[in-house]
Amino acid sequence: MLDPYLLFLGDTTLPGSDKTAAGLVQWRPELCLGQHRLPGCGVDVGLPDMTPAVAHERGARTMVVGVVNVGGHLPPHWIASIVEALDAGLDVAAGLHQRLADIPEVREAATRSGRTIHDVRQPTRPFAPGTGAPRSGKRILTVGTDCVVGKKYTALALEREMRRRGIDADFRATGQTGLMIAGRGVVIDAVIADFISGAAEWLSPAATADHWDVIEGQGALNHPAYAGVTLGLIHGSQPDVLVLCHEPVRPNILGLDYIIPDLATCIAMNLDAARLTNPQARVAGISINTSRMSAEAAALARRQIAEETGLACADPIRDGVGDIVDAILRPGVD
Amino acid sequence: MLDPYLLFLGDTTLPGSDKTAAGLVQWRPELCLGQHRLPGCGVDVGLPDMTPAVAHERGARTMVVGVVNVGGHLPPHWIASIVEALDAGLDVAAGLHQRLADIPEVREAATRSGRTIHDVRQPTRPFAPGTGAPRSGKRILTVGTDCVVGKKYTALALEREMRRRGIDADFRATGQTGLMIAGRGVVIDAVIADFISGAAEWLSPAATADHWDVIEGQGALNHPAYAGVTLGLIHGSQPDVLVLCHEPVRPNILGLDYIIPDLATCIAMNLDAARLTNPQARVAGISINTSRMSAEAAALARRQIAEETGLACADPIRDGVGDIVDAILRPGVD
Repeated sequence: MLDPYLLFLGDTTLPGSDKTAAGLVQWRPELCLGQHRLPGCGVDVGLPDMTPAVAHERGARTMVVGVVNVGGHLPPHWIASIVEALDAGLDVAAGLHQRLADIPEVREAATRSGRTIHDVRQPTRPFAPGTGAPRSGKRILTVGTDCVVGKKYTALALEREMRRRGIDADFRATGQTGLMIAGRGVVIDAVIADFISGAAEWLSPAATADHWDVIEGQGALNHPAYAGVTLGLIHGSQPDVLVLCHEPVRPNILGLDYIIPDLATCIAMNLDAARLTNPQARVAGISINTSRMSAEAAALARRQIAEETGLACADPIRDGVGDIVDAILRPGVD
Repeated sequence: MLDPYLLFLGDTTLPGSDKTAAGLVQWRPELCLGQHRLPGCGVDVGLPDMTPAVAHERGARTMVVGVVNVGGHLPPHWIASIVEALDAGLDVAAGLHQRLADIPEVREAATRSGRTIHDVRQPTRPFAPGTGAPRSGKRILTVGTDCVVGKKYTALALEREMRRRGIDADFRATGQTGLMIAGRGVVIDAVIADFISGAAEWLSPAATADHWDVIEGQGALNHPAYAGVTLGLIHGSQPDVLVLCHEPVRPNILGLDYIIPDLATCIAMNLDAARLTNPQARVAGISINTSRMSAEAAALARRQIAEETGLACADPIRDGVGDIVDAILRPGVD
């Protein structure tokens, strides 16, 4: 994907639905030139507003669809904006289940303008079934008590902190936003079901003994819709270390009538699953998302969870992930 | 798919790789007219050998690729046989991950002859993510301690025995062979990973209170390659009753260096998983595959497993599934 990017936000109004745009602005600000919003848009990632034509004039190379919706489909009234961007000379990238390249108007505009469409959610290669064979190198996987709880952010923060300490660490993207941030990876929820763990094995291949892959987790084992993806990703990743991501003030799975189990139960579920393919797997820490809590409540939750679980606990944004990296690097004793 | 069928066995030599052909002969003998084998073929499903031209003359309508291989690809030297069948006036059906319709020679032959290609493993509709919302009707899911252990056979035998007793029961196919036998279903391992449980919810929809769906299981929770598919299928199926399928003389996952856990562990794993979406789920019985055991050893294993687990235990082929159906219909007491 050629940069810099124009981030398309459409006319979305749902807070949080701009997670791809927000993730790019957070982790790759140097690649983000502007945002393009339609009338009525209710989100703002803090970049100058500009049309595709103006963005192209200022040097933008790709318009990124920066919002996601459940089901991964493009609202039909956004097609004109995609076509406009292609005609203005921009490539277009999106991470939907639906392929932009399958929309006739979009395909025609790309042909006409000679621009490229990047459907980053679509696997670009076939995978083999997983083998479960042990491999060298060290791997961290972020897991969660729900979706949208900080698994990508935590993995990116761990990579940054480990690299700061001179450790050889690589973030491994498994979602469309992570892939756009990292520029590589595999969108694991878009892989054919038979190949989930095989794709995860491909994503974090054998490495030198002191190399760490920091793999972005997906879904949750206690999630009735997505646990299959989570389990295949755990098995294929063969993590040495798990970091559990959790929002303390969230009682239920987002949007569903399912209570999130207590942390001890979630830790045990994930550990049991991981130990099938890596008997030495351990949970090193809890990454909490306290964005909806006061500073006092966040600090209290951090202390309580550390005490309750006996594990390092931190909010990567408020506290950094130094304590969790310390715990990751301490040899396992459980 | 138009019947009757000519079953294509290629030149396969691996025992068990003819499972699609064998399943059709076992469960739909009235649809199977002949078999077509290439020189060197080492399997035999007991039907008259005939060429596509002769089969067409005798009334066959579809040639079914009746063998499967790991990875789901067609050996290139079989393409000529597929083309020959189409040119002889037969439709062709296959359950590979690879689409026959994507092979240029096959596509051209189908166009030329006006025949139809059935790539039954390919989902023919989009699915939504699972919701986990409770639904009416009763559901049985067969689960296993490994692949190729009798989950499809057991589910079909349960449907037959329940219908014999006047119970309103429907087999729900989740694999390519099951789908060809039933004429409907969804090949769950070919669904996009995000939609495994959603596809399972679609497959066994809400029904009347006394209706039973008997859902064919896939993979195993203790399988390092396929557990994600298994878990999504369990969650989406919301089974009231699980039947665990097991081969007593198999120590390891087929082809992999993974020991199969003891039955108590497998029962607990599957129950824990099922209770996320159906807290009333119970295991009613153990279906054993004793095909590689003597009658004496099989009888002993049956007694020992029944004693060890406290559950009904039977080999559907040697013993029938009457005892297991009795246990299914007994109200749960655990």
